[in-house]
Amino acid sequence: MERAVLTGTIDRYCAAWNEPDAGRRAEILAAVWSEGATYTDPTVHATGAAELLAHIGKVRAARPGARIERTGDIASHHGTALFFWRLVLADGSPAPEGLDIVELAADGRRITRILGYFGPLPRLPDRASA
Amino acid sequence: MERAVLTGTIDRYCAAWNEPDAGRRAEILAAVWSEGATYTDPTVHATGAAELLAHIGKVRAARPGARIERTGDIASHHGTALFFWRLVLADGSPAPEGLDIVELAADGRRITRILGYFGPLPRLPDRASA
Repeated sequence: MERAVLTGTIDRYCAAWNEPDAGRRAEILAAVWSEGATYTDPTVHATGAAELLAHIGKVRAARPGARIERTGDIASHHGTALFFWRLVLADGSPAPEGLDIVELAADGRRITRILGYFGPLPRLPDRASA
Repeated sequence: MERAVLTGTIDRYCAAWNEPDAGRRAEILAAVWSEGATYTDPTVHATGAAELLAHIGKVRAARPGARIERTGDIASHHGTALFFWRLVLADGSPAPEGLDIVELAADGRRITRILGYFGPLPRLPDRASA
């Protein structure tokens, strides 16, 4: 899986979350979301783009103007990827952080599954004191 | 999934990594590893207990006396779990950190899949400056 392709796919996925226009959001997601791909986080299990778009719409409505920002590089092995992100509220203040584990089609252009966890994440003692 | 059961399963899995005796290691793992369960990290993809035990044996031989320590709580939702860990070398110094995403049978007593990532993990800016 080519790194530039993988990065493009994940950043496009994040861009879908951040797009205010619902129609444009659906277009952005459609380019990277495989048919029947699942999205699971502590609050929802969504199958297919329509269910995920409905969830994103609800989350956006609850926190108008908030944005997801990927923090740091994307790690990847065996057709999977890991990235950390944070939610930045409309006033710029950071909100809970999270991580997504992504499973992708072999070419890295389509997501087949995302499993997300978000904050507060379990502490990393070494990291916190670094 | 009952939290005490989940914690017991994951701590038993970690104990298998830390058991010096190969026969005892196999017994410990057998109690929590589903038939055909997969373990995938950046260096290996192992299917079933025998392949995982062979991998653990190699890792232990490369770093005699090293131990895996779970750091922090176990997060869990939708039949999955997340925990962070660190490797502590025989002289007590910490080595790379990692995280495991665990998929479990419905009762939480058996692991069906582990996907691991390890260090250095992508940075968490918020966390590092906390």
